[in-house]
Amino acid sequence: MHDDPNLTCPVARALDVVGDRWSLLIVRDAFDGVCRFSDFQRSLGMSRSMLSQRLQALQDSGVLAQQAAADGSRYHDYVLTAQGRALFPLVVALRQWGEGFLFAEGEPRSQLLTIADGRGLAPLLPRDADGQVLEAAATQVVKPTAG
Amino acid sequence: MHDDPNLTCPVARALDVVGDRWSLLIVRDAFDGVCRFSDFQRSLGMSRSMLSQRLQALQDSGVLAQQAAADGSRYHDYVLTAQGRALFPLVVALRQWGEGFLFAEGEPRSQLLTIADGRGLAPLLPRDADGQVLEAAATQVVKPTAG
Repeated sequence: MHDDPNLTCPVARALDVVGDRWSLLIVRDAFDGVCRFSDFQRSLGMSRSMLSQRLQALQDSGVLAQQAAADGSRYHDYVLTAQGRALFPLVVALRQWGEGFLFAEGEPRSQLLTIADGRGLAPLLPRDADGQVLEAAATQVVKPTAG
Repeated sequence: MHDDPNLTCPVARALDVVGDRWSLLIVRDAFDGVCRFSDFQRSLGMSRSMLSQRLQALQDSGVLAQQAAADGSRYHDYVLTAQGRALFPLVVALRQWGEGFLFAEGEPRSQLLTIADGRGLAPLLPRDADGQVLEAAATQVVKPTAG
């Protein structure tokens, strides 16, 4: 039974988990080293109740985990799991698209740089199994056949 | 004046445009060749009013454009602009993350394959300017200094 193609679409399923602006901003902040409730709140300007709800949803879906605070205090930290860290390409894709199309020439913007040498990243480009860059037009989505 | 760091963050700005589930599902369908209002509606199961609103917003932000229907009928098609086609890495990142974490072993799912040889794509991985794969921990976000 695959009547609704969205049920078998990995894009749709990913969007069920991270398909809203707040969740992805929380993930962005977590990559940036934010780990405390109050720091997420300050960064994002969300209400406590909405932030609580999104943090819980991200924990329920395996993107974030709670752990004892690194500083030994009674607080706990929210940290990305391996599944959460695997969202790095997605965050980079959002960043590069924003950089490419949504800023005027010379407009101030934050930059993602390597720690090792302070350079920017290469453009993230879909490639085939041999490493050749692929345009979308060179690909097709193949839906599963009902068993 | 960069008091709100989200104003200078390309990730946040990208999410202002495509940071909701419906917009990205519309973009996904457009990559899949969907171009008619009625076909988007059938694929997504959205109300006409919500679909109209999202299609208009995606046109206003330069992701989609209307053009005369390819079949010469009185309808018009919604097609991705160059800016919209540049979302391909983002859609691939969503797909690969969904494939990696949100499907059980052997669970039926749609696949993105090359037309040329029917193979899957390589994993989309952020790389430095020399092509070396980068973990998030090897990068940092540098915020603009107030002028």
